[in-house]
Amino acid sequence: MTYCIGMLVRDGLVMMADTRTNAGVDNISCYRKLRIAAGGPDRMIIVCSAGNLSTSQQAMQRMRRGTPNEESGEADSWDSVPGIYEAALAAGRALRLSRNDNDSLNQGSVVFDATLLVGGSVGGEPNRLFLVYPEGNIIECGPDTPYLQIGEAKYGKPILDRALDFDTPLDQALKLGLISFDSTMRANIAVGLPIDLIALRHGEPRPVVQHRIEADDPYFSALSRGWSDAIARAVDGIAPPPY
Amino acid sequence: MTYCIGMLVRDGLVMMADTRTNAGVDNISCYRKLRIAAGGPDRMIIVCSAGNLSTSQQAMQRMRRGTPNEESGEADSWDSVPGIYEAALAAGRALRLSRNDNDSLNQGSVVFDATLLVGGSVGGEPNRLFLVYPEGNIIECGPDTPYLQIGEAKYGKPILDRALDFDTPLDQALKLGLISFDSTMRANIAVGLPIDLIALRHGEPRPVVQHRIEADDPYFSALSRGWSDAIARAVDGIAPPPY
Repeated sequence: MTYCIGMLVRDGLVMMADTRTNAGVDNISCYRKLRIAAGGPDRMIIVCSAGNLSTSQQAMQRMRRGTPNEESGEADSWDSVPGIYEAALAAGRALRLSRNDNDSLNQGSVVFDATLLVGGSVGGEPNRLFLVYPEGNIIECGPDTPYLQIGEAKYGKPILDRALDFDTPLDQALKLGLISFDSTMRANIAVGLPIDLIALRHGEPRPVVQHRIEADDPYFSALSRGWSDAIARAVDGIAPPPY
Repeated sequence: MTYCIGMLVRDGLVMMADTRTNAGVDNISCYRKLRIAAGGPDRMIIVCSAGNLSTSQQAMQRMRRGTPNEESGEADSWDSVPGIYEAALAAGRALRLSRNDNDSLNQGSVVFDATLLVGGSVGGEPNRLFLVYPEGNIIECGPDTPYLQIGEAKYGKPILDRALDFDTPLDQALKLGLISFDSTMRANIAVGLPIDLIALRHGEPRPVVQHRIEADDPYFSALSRGWSDAIARAVDGIAPPPY
């Protein structure tokens, strides 16, 4: 399992991913799922992946080398696409091709689906954020619901629905993302530390935050304890039911 | 979809269920999913159901009339079982029989699984709480994790994991259950008001609370708003990330 969030707010873009992969609960490994796919002078493309690791790795490899584009006759790579929208579209084609390759192995009940978040900007355009489905289609994040999730999304959704909006400052969005991760990790052991995170401020080409939260991270531990305490106080603050 | 919670704490038992059923998002109805299955002088058996409505209704009907018990050669009904454990076991047999009946209709991709929560007490025993799986097997709720959920369980789990324990007072458990429902209903429109709820205090044969929360319930509306405000304050109370 995996959990990844992308948040696109007025100030910028935050992307976060855990690092746990598992084939059953008895085969757990640590793999990076958040990457800077392209960080050249004119572009910053960040990708998070969830789902079948073989499929997502093949898709990333295709995007480094170039994925065929039937319309242009060219091959689209992270370094060649003219915009972040085209990066997401090309990643969708790469994902579909990689899934189909794997599907042909036809190993019974194994699911070869993988899903991506693709965010960032190319050539000075504003940051944008996309979810790329296993079939290759994409949706874009907008201000009404300023986040996208992939992987184990349900446990960490309520906090985002209640507290995140388009005007949330960037550091507050990062904090909400960490609370969302903490809730998810408590409920599903297939999501686990370390957590990788990147934050981009609109108009600044380099990340303002780029960090890996390890198991002994003091801020994350304090956040986890502090949040449980705050929840207990919040529950006490609500009047008892009159029924 | 459906969401039901059972909470078994030191003081007593709380059971809650929504009332929304759906066959797609374009076919939504209101059905009671929490029932007092038996309320005679020596027993209080409460049942919540999730999953295929045809299967759960058939199982409830079987349990009213009596479900064959191969070991005893008798038929077990809500009114005849000698304990709440036997009620849950018999409900499991009724569920399996009803699912198999429906399975034989063989309507393509329709899933005929249903799941139950069975709680209460018979003959003065302490209240107990069981989850009955579609296959007929059962698990019992214990003090380490003093709740069981069926249906759309994920969105409403984090608040229970953080704030509910075996020593939580009965009215606080009820409040936590309502917050868990509110989080679920915000995330999944297939779970909706009214919510039925029952609370039993150990040693008291009649429910101390038995209530239906309708769409215009002022306490539930205030709880929903108050919880969002409290969450916003709790987020503000956590230090910004140092990264």
